Amino acid sequence: MTLPVDHSVLPDRRVRAGWTGSGGADATLPAHANRWLSAKTGLTARGTPVAPDSALAVAESGLPAPARAVLSAIVGAEHVLVEREDRLGRAGGLSYLDLLGRRGAGRPTVPDAVVCPGNRAEVQRVVEACAEHDVAVVPFGGGTSVVGGVAALRGGKAAVVVLDLARLDRLVSVDPVSRLAVFEAGVVAPEAERLLAAHGLTLGHFPQSYERATLGGFAATRSSGQASAGYGRFEDMVEGVRLATPRGEWRLGVSPASAAGPDLRHLVVGSEGAFGVITEVTLRVRPAPAWDRYEGFVLDGFAAGAAAVRTLAQGGALGTVTRLSDPRETEVALALADGWRPAALRAYLRARGVVEPCLLVVGWEGATRAEMLSRRRATRRALGPAVRLGVGPGNAWRAGRFAGPRQRDALLDAGMCVETLETATYWAGLDRLRAAVRGALLGSLTAPGRKPIVACHISHAYETGASLYFTVLVPRDAEDPVGQWQAAKQAACAAIAGLGTITHHHATGVDHAPYLPEEIGALGVDVLAAIKDRLDPRGVLNPGKLIAAPPPAPGPRPAR
Amino acid sequence: MTLPVDHSVLPDRRVRAGWTGSGGADATLPAHANRWLSAKTGLTARGTPVAPDSALAVAESGLPAPARAVLSAIVGAEHVLVEREDRLGRAGGLSYLDLLGRRGAGRPTVPDAVVCPGNRAEVQRVVEACAEHDVAVVPFGGGTSVVGGVAALRGGKAAVVVLDLARLDRLVSVDPVSRLAVFEAGVVAPEAERLLAAHGLTLGHFPQSYERATLGGFAATRSSGQASAGYGRFEDMVEGVRLATPRGEWRLGVSPASAAGPDLRHLVVGSEGAFGVITEVTLRVRPAPAWDRYEGFVLDGFAAGAAAVRTLAQGGALGTVTRLSDPRETEVALALADGWRPAALRAYLRARGVVEPCLLVVGWEGATRAEMLSRRRATRRALGPAVRLGVGPGNAWRAGRFAGPRQRDALLDAGMCVETLETATYWAGLDRLRAAVRGALLGSLTAPGRKPIVACHISHAYETGASLYFTVLVPRDAEDPVGQWQAAKQAACAAIAGLGTITHHHATGVDHAPYLPEEIGALGVDVLAAIKDRLDPRGVLNPGKLIAAPPPAPGPRPAR
Repeated sequence: MTLPVDHSVLPDRRVRAGWTGSGGADATLPAHANRWLSAKTGLTARGTPVAPDSALAVAESGLPAPARAVLSAIVGAEHVLVEREDRLGRAGGLSYLDLLGRRGAGRPTVPDAVVCPGNRAEVQRVVEACAEHDVAVVPFGGGTSVVGGVAALRGGKAAVVVLDLARLDRLVSVDPVSRLAVFEAGVVAPEAERLLAAHGLTLGHFPQSYERATLGGFAATRSSGQASAGYGRFEDMVEGVRLATPRGEWRLGVSPASAAGPDLRHLVVGSEGAFGVITEVTLRVRPAPAWDRYEGFVLDGFAAGAAAVRTLAQGGALGTVTRLSDPRETEVALALADGWRPAALRAYLRARGVVEPCLLVVGWEGATRAEMLSRRRATRRALGPAVRLGVGPGNAWRAGRFAGPRQRDALLDAGMCVETLETATYWAGLDRLRAAVRGALLGSLTAPGRKPIVACHISHAYETGASLYFTVLVPRDAEDPVGQWQAAKQAACAAIAGLGTITHHHATGVDHAPYLPEEIGALGVDVLAAIKDRLDPRGVLNPGKLIAAPPPAPGPRPAR
Repeated sequence: MTLPVDHSVLPDRRVRAGWTGSGGADATLPAHANRWLSAKTGLTARGTPVAPDSALAVAESGLPAPARAVLSAIVGAEHVLVEREDRLGRAGGLSYLDLLGRRGAGRPTVPDAVVCPGNRAEVQRVVEACAEHDVAVVPFGGGTSVVGGVAALRGGKAAVVVLDLARLDRLVSVDPVSRLAVFEAGVVAPEAERLLAAHGLTLGHFPQSYERATLGGFAATRSSGQASAGYGRFEDMVEGVRLATPRGEWRLGVSPASAAGPDLRHLVVGSEGAFGVITEVTLRVRPAPAWDRYEGFVLDGFAAGAAAVRTLAQGGALGTVTRLSDPRETEVALALADGWRPAALRAYLRARGVVEPCLLVVGWEGATRAEMLSRRRATRRALGPAVRLGVGPGNAWRAGRFAGPRQRDALLDAGMCVETLETATYWAGLDRLRAAVRGALLGSLTAPGRKPIVACHISHAYETGASLYFTVLVPRDAEDPVGQWQAAKQAACAAIAGLGTITHHHATGVDHAPYLPEEIGALGVDVLAAIKDRLDPRGVLNPGKLIAAPPPAPGPRPAR
């Protein structure tokens, strides 16, 4: 049974304003955090605010008049935006280098126009028109890519337009019996949750980009949320998908499982806009939990912590959220946090013989209190000797779970280089991978007067392995901030090669494309190219993403 | 950590003998079953034994001498088999039409030779040599395909060889920390379990083809086993894979999860030999359970039964095995069973007001008795009003869980047409799909003096939907037994189109290839063709499977 959705309750269609990476009012560092950073990293710079948009050099729109006329005929002239601010607002994503670009270092990739179709059919026609007029198309959801996935690259075409999916914002239908919901691709995650909540349902997908990212973007990038242990990765939720390609609409998904050849949904999920524009997704949904609870634990040393998370994952005892910080990240969390009492906590742990505290946050959910507590019991039983901190650290993590991007803005304002990267591998290789990446980042970023902090956590655990998520903090190199990070990223990627995946949930984009051949082989890249050739013969879709040139030679990488 | 495997305990490498579809000693029907079939279906024929191999017309091997010389140089002349019996032993799979072919109706597809490489490198060289010499290659594991997946079709090539993977029979390594095992592709399932048992591990994959099927075959066909509720589908177990293609080896899998573009493992899993030959699989394994228990329940009517299974699937309360028979299958099970007391059971159920008994078998496993019983408790709680039959029917199902193929042989001997087919869809559409397929089969197979039995069960349940597995029993048409089944199969496939997947776990092969465009779209077929062109530019790999001609016009289909 499919319930009709009352569209009268939906908000007006809107075109989201762009975001320039300015942190806004809630992005400030407490004074003790600034002092701590100075002591630990050698930070001396003070106050490097965002340049106003007007300070950025932006070329005039180069969209040829015939293409603009055709696009206007499809979506309406008011939905083809060529103003400077509209184009700047979709100039790339939210990587550190993107943010630097908006602070005057490097050049933002600014599209020639932003096209905002209002429905699936219009997306299809826009894609076909762009192919015909030799215009590159960059699909754009929330613009939260941290790997250059929405960089407005021309790829040798006459012009490049950003295809903003903001107006595809409807919940199309809900099937509560099969627990399926059909959404247009441009729905942002909080709106999806709001629409589902009216049916007592949840998607359960909460990545750090939650506040701005879209369902189509999650699918295009194989996103994974903080509650992946409870709800799975986004790819596990996608039951069906519609893709607008230059050769027509491709629709997939008729059954929860099938043996009718390869599962082609897994080609579309993760296709990063290079094969087509995802316009609609059919998603598995679940009843919204009535109860939840988050608690903190401490384990002594990362090896013991990882072993504990492995025990949980292999014993079916993971919480809905399960997140282990290494000693360095635990230290940073304590130092930068407001509201905790780090000194008292350290004393408490010392008294219990903990030498290298590793914070483990676990969250449980349940339809009933008993169900939630039963899950909590399973976790606590499996954890054994972990020190229990109760709900304080759990609730603190939860309160700040989406604050990372804003906190990063504040750190940028303070003069820091701050970026994250992530990988994953099988349990037996996890320690080696962590050591290799840490070593590469520390080696690359250490300089006279600059001591990098490299923190790490596990936030996605599987029976066979886990992810590793690294956060890097180091005073920004005033001379060459771009080169400083490019060299570090390159060192980290080289360290990952052969030991794990180049990305567990950030996608390939521009930044990881050179490392893809190492992971999927020359034949894998060749297969991707064959698929792209077939679906996008003129190569207008998201140029430079997913499939790219060979890896750069050692040394500083050219700006993209 | 990877433990070295002691290969001295492995059995001698062996080349499995072929199987001609003769049931053997354990395939007889009890007298009461014969009587029941006569009464219910109009069966009158008696005794139609298998023809001896010598009665079959088999052409001489047409393998050109240069190709034979090259293949002999690679694998050794003793591993290039051209004798009549060796070739007949790999002439197709185990579909009803395959079995009819060995009983003199229709023509078996007999390869020109059987090539038995001894390791990955030899498979690679065989594939490259066949591409060079324009020889079609049919990868062959256990030969249990029921969809023509191993039919030795030439596809316009000079000759066709079966590439028998029987000698790739090693457990390569075990990683107990990550719970991974690397196997060569030709290991048969019981041998895999035996090798893993030495490490206290299990794969947990038990399809009905278990006794003969291979791990590589499971991967190539997206197999799903009877314990899928507990262990997942085979595709969920494949962490890594090596594929021998005419363009070199393709190796995939570095991490439990990744966002590095599309998940290409899902292209290889389900590729049915059309993109390459799977030579090695890295599989997720689990500790072998110490405890298990199987019980029977009865629900009143299929709708109530399906709703109960849905409740279990959506509430996380499925057993490791969960299998619901519809009223007709329940009746057949009672009629054909030995050892049960059907009359007493019927009276017992009548006394409890059950009008349309549907048998539900649930099996639970656990590392401890308490764990197993806790799972059992969850199921029983969720089942509510189901009538409990205890361990009798559970153990009876378990004892016969792999007996289907042998029972089928006995029914064929008795003069019956007996075949199965399966599909899957979302819960909201399950009733409609079941009615459509039942109606199509009954309509096609009913004839003067012949009353078909169409039984159905759910054996794979997901949060969003379930599979439907149909078993057909009808007296064989003596004049045109092939046409009788082809018409019924065509009617069933037409009924499935638009309502569910053309196959939930039997794969595409030759039989379902014409219906694939309906399911994955013309663009999907085009993408598969593009991938095949790139990996197998000369088209020597398993011709006619997966990618095929458009669907046949209505009416009898030509023999393949």
